[in-house]
Amino acid sequence: MKLLKETLGKIGELDKEAMQKVRNRVDNLIKPKGSLGRLEEIVVQLSGITGDVFPKVDNKAVIVMAGDHGVYEENIAPNPQRITAIQTCNFPKGVTGVCALAKQAGADVVTVDVGVSVDIDGPGVINKKIKYGTNNMVKGHAMTREEAVKALEIGIEIANEEIKKGRNLLTTGEMGIGNTTPSAAIVSVLGDYAPHEVAGRGAGLPIEKLQHKASIIKKAIDINKPHKKDGIDVLSKVGGLEIGAMAGVMISGASNRVPVVVDGFIATAAALIACTIEPRVKNYLFPSHSSMEKGANKALELLGLRPMLDMDMRLGEGTGAVLAFNIIEAAVFMNNEMITFEEAGIATD
Amino acid sequence: MKLLKETLGKIGELDKEAMQKVRNRVDNLIKPKGSLGRLEEIVVQLSGITGDVFPKVDNKAVIVMAGDHGVYEENIAPNPQRITAIQTCNFPKGVTGVCALAKQAGADVVTVDVGVSVDIDGPGVINKKIKYGTNNMVKGHAMTREEAVKALEIGIEIANEEIKKGRNLLTTGEMGIGNTTPSAAIVSVLGDYAPHEVAGRGAGLPIEKLQHKASIIKKAIDINKPHKKDGIDVLSKVGGLEIGAMAGVMISGASNRVPVVVDGFIATAAALIACTIEPRVKNYLFPSHSSMEKGANKALELLGLRPMLDMDMRLGEGTGAVLAFNIIEAAVFMNNEMITFEEAGIATD
Repeated sequence: MKLLKETLGKIGELDKEAMQKVRNRVDNLIKPKGSLGRLEEIVVQLSGITGDVFPKVDNKAVIVMAGDHGVYEENIAPNPQRITAIQTCNFPKGVTGVCALAKQAGADVVTVDVGVSVDIDGPGVINKKIKYGTNNMVKGHAMTREEAVKALEIGIEIANEEIKKGRNLLTTGEMGIGNTTPSAAIVSVLGDYAPHEVAGRGAGLPIEKLQHKASIIKKAIDINKPHKKDGIDVLSKVGGLEIGAMAGVMISGASNRVPVVVDGFIATAAALIACTIEPRVKNYLFPSHSSMEKGANKALELLGLRPMLDMDMRLGEGTGAVLAFNIIEAAVFMNNEMITFEEAGIATD
Repeated sequence: MKLLKETLGKIGELDKEAMQKVRNRVDNLIKPKGSLGRLEEIVVQLSGITGDVFPKVDNKAVIVMAGDHGVYEENIAPNPQRITAIQTCNFPKGVTGVCALAKQAGADVVTVDVGVSVDIDGPGVINKKIKYGTNNMVKGHAMTREEAVKALEIGIEIANEEIKKGRNLLTTGEMGIGNTTPSAAIVSVLGDYAPHEVAGRGAGLPIEKLQHKASIIKKAIDINKPHKKDGIDVLSKVGGLEIGAMAGVMISGASNRVPVVVDGFIATAAALIACTIEPRVKNYLFPSHSSMEKGANKALELLGLRPMLDMDMRLGEGTGAVLAFNIIEAAVFMNNEMITFEEAGIATD
């Protein structure tokens, strides 16, 4: 609890002075004012985060958190649970979806086991296992409050280490068969949505099983009665170990003034947990894509984030966020490479 | 006319066999089937274009066409016409919006004067000037049919040269104060829209002048009576020299089996001209962003293209397309770097 408390205590406001300075600069670059739209907003936010009028995003990483879910036994996922462990070992090999996209974006992939249901013996996976998967949330809390705090602190710890190495742009990915179910439960609780409004097909659940999935989510919420004002309570009762660790990465980013990009549905659920614990985290987050998962856009709206990419993606792993790394980097290039009307010798009056 | 005819004659169908092969591969990569959404569609289309199951997009260029517009004298643009020449000279210096984004995307910028209203004496600008700006289209044809063909052929010639150097991903940018007016005229004619439905604020026209702009477009169409089945006729009567050259780049891309990304409103108008001349060009085009310019999304719909990026951009120059270069490259990385279930030793039944 000490690390979490300390980290939360360090989260400050955006640097308004740096934002005003970069806003002035961007307004005077040789283009019609405002014509680079959201690229301009991105660099202003980056300056607010970093305090730097020429922010850098040249050292990027995706932190992939892996964990299993006790609620899997309720038949809410189409794929075998062992896929979590298999894929967790595949990240360090560079052969999964997010690895491919990270290579394109010049980002590294860091893989962490926070709660896979079996021991991971693949090289390159950081072992921070809290337990062998969460408990089945329809039978009680998914984890204890202490375990939820531990998940958050593992995220903080890993992100702190990466930031110490010089990372200046982070995102979170995840691997956890069944994890759209706790994510939907979180979004349902925090956004006051009925479970059927936010329960989606995940990795390909047959449409006729959607109602069953929603009923499982409803049951978990009814039994556990999570307190929507208490992010740790929601996380412990209907969340996931990897979701907590992802929220921890976001909290660390905010406390270290490093931007974190929010991927799809599961990352958005994690962001909602982080922002419920400390609303100022939101200022340090960037949106990425509009996931195909039902409820993803509702969850983004709750955060006040508007997706930049419309790619019909629904893989998770951090894939949408890594695509957005390029856009954020483009905003930085705009700021660094373009010249102002004054520098170009063009009168503007 | 010979070059145009020959080039059009070389445009073939997509390679269905290569598309099927890459579709099979993509379906078997270690992810839920279809979960990388439009990235999967991109690589399938790239394979259809190139005939290669592992297409490459590692040699990218933006071809920026510059030209002025006689209709400028009708007060349809907020900026002085001399900006066209000033900015044309700024592209080779690497300091404009598209240059900054091209640097991020690893793309080169090629700048061509096809019709700036003054002589360009900046280094690095390819001189292919057809005339010193188009004629004022409210007083007659913007250019002769021969000049329209010449504009198309300049685009073909420049793109052919770039492709000969090894370019495997192209886009078009433009510089031409006032060029949303002819673009709106083209979209109005080819899409059967009333001018006021597609006349937008361009680089910042005051909202109270929009009706005037629409009336100028209507006047130009009424006087010139362009034939909507004849793309060259539309281009010559209500188009622009740089718009014709951009259409030429797209036609060259299609004939050389090289993909071309469509930027915002002006590029979409050019694409509509190219596809009216030869509908098969469409198969070689990729969308990029949803421009803020009124009419841009209507124009994209006419082409059957759905934007990937929602960035509130409206600069032109090719900026939105260059952002999309990253996404197309990510699709290629997905195909190259991910492994199949079989390669991963994961049973799928």
